Amino acid sequence: MRSGEFELIRKLTSSFSIKNKDVVVGVGDDCAVIKSSSSRYILATVDAQVAGVHFLPETPPERIGQKAVAVSISDIAAMGGTPKHCLVSLFLPKNIADNYVERVYRGITRECRAYSIDVVGGNITSAHQFAIDVALLGEVNPKNVLLRRGARVGDKVLVTGSLGNAGAGLYLLQNPRTQVPAAVRKLLVAKQNNPTPRVWESSIIAHARKATAMIDISDGLAQDMLHIAEQALVGVTLYENQLLVSREVKSFCKATGKNPSEFALAGGEDYELLFTAPPSHANALIRKVKKETGTAVTVIGEITKKEMGNWLILNNGRKKQLKPDGWNHLRV
Amino acid sequence: MRSGEFELIRKLTSSFSIKNKDVVVGVGDDCAVIKSSSSRYILATVDAQVAGVHFLPETPPERIGQKAVAVSISDIAAMGGTPKHCLVSLFLPKNIADNYVERVYRGITRECRAYSIDVVGGNITSAHQFAIDVALLGEVNPKNVLLRRGARVGDKVLVTGSLGNAGAGLYLLQNPRTQVPAAVRKLLVAKQNNPTPRVWESSIIAHARKATAMIDISDGLAQDMLHIAEQALVGVTLYENQLLVSREVKSFCKATGKNPSEFALAGGEDYELLFTAPPSHANALIRKVKKETGTAVTVIGEITKKEMGNWLILNNGRKKQLKPDGWNHLRV
Repeated sequence: MRSGEFELIRKLTSSFSIKNKDVVVGVGDDCAVIKSSSSRYILATVDAQVAGVHFLPETPPERIGQKAVAVSISDIAAMGGTPKHCLVSLFLPKNIADNYVERVYRGITRECRAYSIDVVGGNITSAHQFAIDVALLGEVNPKNVLLRRGARVGDKVLVTGSLGNAGAGLYLLQNPRTQVPAAVRKLLVAKQNNPTPRVWESSIIAHARKATAMIDISDGLAQDMLHIAEQALVGVTLYENQLLVSREVKSFCKATGKNPSEFALAGGEDYELLFTAPPSHANALIRKVKKETGTAVTVIGEITKKEMGNWLILNNGRKKQLKPDGWNHLRV
Repeated sequence: MRSGEFELIRKLTSSFSIKNKDVVVGVGDDCAVIKSSSSRYILATVDAQVAGVHFLPETPPERIGQKAVAVSISDIAAMGGTPKHCLVSLFLPKNIADNYVERVYRGITRECRAYSIDVVGGNITSAHQFAIDVALLGEVNPKNVLLRRGARVGDKVLVTGSLGNAGAGLYLLQNPRTQVPAAVRKLLVAKQNNPTPRVWESSIIAHARKATAMIDISDGLAQDMLHIAEQALVGVTLYENQLLVSREVKSFCKATGKNPSEFALAGGEDYELLFTAPPSHANALIRKVKKETGTAVTVIGEITKKEMGNWLILNNGRKKQLKPDGWNHLRV
């Protein structure tokens, strides 16, 4: 989502007053949180994938279906929850082949099966442009739920996995003549087309009950970090030299003359988990996630008082304001 | 929804096996039904409104927003439930005016407020064509839930309100030069653009615990009646001379030379409740709904054994097969 859209959402939803007492969190987090019982919150999220906006015409239809579900699963994971039930809205152009739709659906059911999600409903409508809108329901123990607003001054900022892969993959899809090793292209494009939501890692982080806030990286590290800062009424300082970038992104950047940090900060769609935890618990969380899932977790910064502002400490020691639209505005 | 789409849904969802034990009803009813506790089922439905498909360019944007929510509320009502929380996906063309979107949203919030629904989430994406996809959650006491499959042989078939108004309204919107009295045009167009979901009537029918099955009339009486028959594994006989048609539809048909029964059977989008109940309870239900809401309920047919087939008894006493695509195929 781009900045203008956040503005519009803010404008549209600013007049809302919540009427039902069971709404724990409404608009403004990765999912809505609704109280179901004393031991269970329901999580709900919607996310759309539109042809030509979210995927290219040549993307294999199974991948489109898989990703449409995966991005919503990632939203449930970002709250520390478990995905359970989904409803699928399909927007079908008149000339679309039944076989194409069936292949998309095969991707949807494959992804659902992998995470024990049931497709319980849906809708089909005609439209000019092919699109999928997935509504996903999940659940979480109220003691484990992780909201954006929970970050506290002094907390460390942590992130799972490596950053910038999906952004580099998108660049390669949009610029297919770029010269990079075949294995590098394959991995980066797969990270763009076929993200793996961090459900397992989320479950470990949430059950440990030490983290204070969490979000998934869909818009880009900088943008999503600022969502946490804004909602928790805190500041943040990130360190460029702490950003974990994969061998493949480094190879891609070497071949294209790009800066890896640009992709790490603003690439988006990595669907890694960005979370905060008190310094005394950060290392134990890192070890636990690594041991049980094999996924690396790194400390990339810390939460400060709001008055301190939002900063990125560059490799050269200078500091630059952390801006939502990423690297371009951060450059000296 | 048209017949080809039902075929496609059947094809796409036929391979599903439900994995979570809390799923009471998956694909195939007005809503998904998920067990939340022994005293509560969660209901979930999605429905989309697409520019040029579901509404005309000149439709007031507030009406589009209202209707997008109303049609989903009607799905919750069709199960005997209460709507509670919604998530709104907006698909916005680049050139759309912020003011237009704000007016649509005003319609959404107005409709939500009228039924004590909270907007708890959503999504905005760019697209070529303006569209709204609403995911609505509701709840129902498990003892009150009304499924399509509950209809029993011998039950009476009942319907709230009068039929064909919305279909006639659509005809007038599509053929604006049609000569009808101004008051008739106004009412029929309002029925098309601004449907009133029968939440109150639904609540009375559901709490009485005598009805056996229910559906809302979105696709047209014939089509929706056949959904009940198909799911309940029964047959049905409807009587043309029992179909309640408004004064306005009669006036419209007189002016245009149309047959009122055509609109009653195949018009669609009336969002009335079509339900079944044992003969011994039909009259009490009719009186109760009339007394508490003022809405007329009429008996229009009865449920038979599946082998008897699906029939419409015409005014002239002849019988014709009841077909999903309505009147054109029913005509002698």
